Amino acid sequence: MKAEIISIGDELLVGQTVNTNASWIAYQLNLQGIEVLRITTISDTHDEIKNSLQEAAGRATAVLITGGLGPTRDDITKQALCDYFGSSLVFHEPSYKNIIELFGSRGLPVRDVNRRQAEIPHNCIPIHNANGTAPGMWFEKGGIIYVSMPGVPFEMQPMMRDFIIPELLKIKKGDHIVHKMIMTQGVGESFLAEIIGDWEDHLPGNFKVAYLPQPGMVRLRITGRGNEPHALEKELGRLTRELAELIPQYVYGYDEESPEEVIGRLLKEKSATLSTAESCTGGYIAHLITSVPGSSAYFTGSVIAYSNTIKTSVLGVKEQTLKAYGAVSEQTVTEMDEGIRRKFNTDYSIAVSGIAGPDGGTPQKPVGTIWIAVAGPRAALAKKFLFGKNRERNIRLAALSAINALRMAVMEQRI
Amino acid sequence: MKAEIISIGDELLVGQTVNTNASWIAYQLNLQGIEVLRITTISDTHDEIKNSLQEAAGRATAVLITGGLGPTRDDITKQALCDYFGSSLVFHEPSYKNIIELFGSRGLPVRDVNRRQAEIPHNCIPIHNANGTAPGMWFEKGGIIYVSMPGVPFEMQPMMRDFIIPELLKIKKGDHIVHKMIMTQGVGESFLAEIIGDWEDHLPGNFKVAYLPQPGMVRLRITGRGNEPHALEKELGRLTRELAELIPQYVYGYDEESPEEVIGRLLKEKSATLSTAESCTGGYIAHLITSVPGSSAYFTGSVIAYSNTIKTSVLGVKEQTLKAYGAVSEQTVTEMDEGIRRKFNTDYSIAVSGIAGPDGGTPQKPVGTIWIAVAGPRAALAKKFLFGKNRERNIRLAALSAINALRMAVMEQRI
Repeated sequence: MKAEIISIGDELLVGQTVNTNASWIAYQLNLQGIEVLRITTISDTHDEIKNSLQEAAGRATAVLITGGLGPTRDDITKQALCDYFGSSLVFHEPSYKNIIELFGSRGLPVRDVNRRQAEIPHNCIPIHNANGTAPGMWFEKGGIIYVSMPGVPFEMQPMMRDFIIPELLKIKKGDHIVHKMIMTQGVGESFLAEIIGDWEDHLPGNFKVAYLPQPGMVRLRITGRGNEPHALEKELGRLTRELAELIPQYVYGYDEESPEEVIGRLLKEKSATLSTAESCTGGYIAHLITSVPGSSAYFTGSVIAYSNTIKTSVLGVKEQTLKAYGAVSEQTVTEMDEGIRRKFNTDYSIAVSGIAGPDGGTPQKPVGTIWIAVAGPRAALAKKFLFGKNRERNIRLAALSAINALRMAVMEQRI
Repeated sequence: MKAEIISIGDELLVGQTVNTNASWIAYQLNLQGIEVLRITTISDTHDEIKNSLQEAAGRATAVLITGGLGPTRDDITKQALCDYFGSSLVFHEPSYKNIIELFGSRGLPVRDVNRRQAEIPHNCIPIHNANGTAPGMWFEKGGIIYVSMPGVPFEMQPMMRDFIIPELLKIKKGDHIVHKMIMTQGVGESFLAEIIGDWEDHLPGNFKVAYLPQPGMVRLRITGRGNEPHALEKELGRLTRELAELIPQYVYGYDEESPEEVIGRLLKEKSATLSTAESCTGGYIAHLITSVPGSSAYFTGSVIAYSNTIKTSVLGVKEQTLKAYGAVSEQTVTEMDEGIRRKFNTDYSIAVSGIAGPDGGTPQKPVGTIWIAVAGPRAALAKKFLFGKNRERNIRLAALSAINALRMAVMEQRI
């Protein structure tokens, strides 16, 4: 089974919304061995909807559509679907009941626009929407499956998980695809290519490696295709181990595991606790750490000392240190780190102070200069980084580098 | 001029990278009145590249391509472009010099894979890459413009800004498009539709409104088309004012202004300062606030009191309060708020305590229960919210609601 995704919505074409739905759906389909051939984003017009359905049907056997449904935008999409599938709208009682219940639980009255959402093409199978008012729709025509879903991620995702994926798997046959993602930090794409190039040239013909760089990390994805799922998985495991052994110092995890999940796992294993003292990262490290469910088991908290006053009054940085070396210095970041670890009484700590930009740089300390300190029960270390001029990127790179520095220190038992 | 965007890359089709490039490009083109008809994401294969170029050329007069370039993935894309444009690869000296300089500034040796990046089709205009090794390529064929750019945002964006957009504007003629985005918080899509439905029905024929809901907010986009840019802008201004007057309590800003930018502007106007005390939001409010350049003018810092110990030892919440009412209560969040405002000596403060999930809920306080307190020079207030079960969404909704509560209180001079 090969699939295509059609995303409907002017908000996507004018660039005011990023198409995260398409990525999410593609990821889920790939996990199940369903290859996605294309993702097409179109506008909310009758002709574009009909044309793109026709085109996708010429290439794929499953076409997944998102968007164009919802209380204020239902009409065009449903009319285009009716046209394409030669059907007409009928009132669907269970969908209407769902709308009434949903509004009732929120203490809101049902409006006319919501009532119209319960109207669906007569030849579709309606898909229950647990988190919203617009039902999904499943069509079959000429041996091809079409599914239309609302564009709100929170509504679309349970439909995919609970109904669409299980139904597609009943129909799917043929080739299997396997993936393994190797997550690296601290090395660039072309340097990686040089180290593993030879190994890559000798991969079995049904396997390939893709380099996926993003700020602060490069992900290496190994993909294999074949019709023997068991043998394929085994070969993937062997190749993954081989690759990881070529670059052990750079591999921090696998399969989209985030640096914050890895550090969380390590801290849990040690029953150790962590606190952070942040200046230029402004709470972003704490946010990453606490985005992991269960992080309260090891994360105690943080002081964001954005102003120098807080660095001295709350973290205990000496005024003399700030005067002599400045806020962005090895001395200050080390005292911040000592301060937070003492005050929050944790085993490990991270401190960051730097110039995120766009202002605040000097010839000696240009925008992008960031000092990072990490400390543990045995020792502490501080390190200087020089990133670029982009504020958002500097904050992200500083946070990732800080988490990576702590991870390496913890794993090498250096601190 | 109508445009299409083609994004090349298996990482997009397997859902492991979100296509932010396409949104960014679409947004930039729209700002210049260039409508984007479609965004197509395809795999890194010769046939897909050729076919999608052909198809896009049947609809649009400018085709912008990203991806498929870079040290480890050059070959297929460049060969497909050579084929499509009937050209062959030649060595481009200035591109090679750029590569040497870039590697030199980072103290790295130039590798063979990088040398090959200086080879480009002979009939393209090369586009300088200030931040990377792969040059961009500009082609013209049959009255249609094609541009190929690397997929790394940091490399692609300056090419668009400095070369491609200015060149496209020289060629562009015809219709103008104008947009205005009205940002709302605290109201749902269908309720908005009911309030403004009448007004919407009486819009001039060349204007329309789109509802763009996302967690915690609904954006309303007014779009107009015509060939008199001045009259169009004036009409857009009038309609924007009319719409904003219908829903003044919900409008917090315009044109993608974020809640954290608005609160920053308000605090700057008052020369006032802000601190935050965060539990379940784990630093996300501070991160949002400090993502705004210049936020150090009003943001002093934050205590993230993830553990109850820190709530008492650092923020001064009474142990008795925690025992009697629990960490997620009006009493605790109010004491957190008082504590941070006193300790950090700021004019305004925000405190949040809640259950983000997935664990920690009880029948009395289910997952999604969040208490928010805001305080200012005159008074303080606390409010309870009940969101859903998704951790990430709860953190985001709590942070947005807290910033919104502070904004409303500040604007209404209530605190």
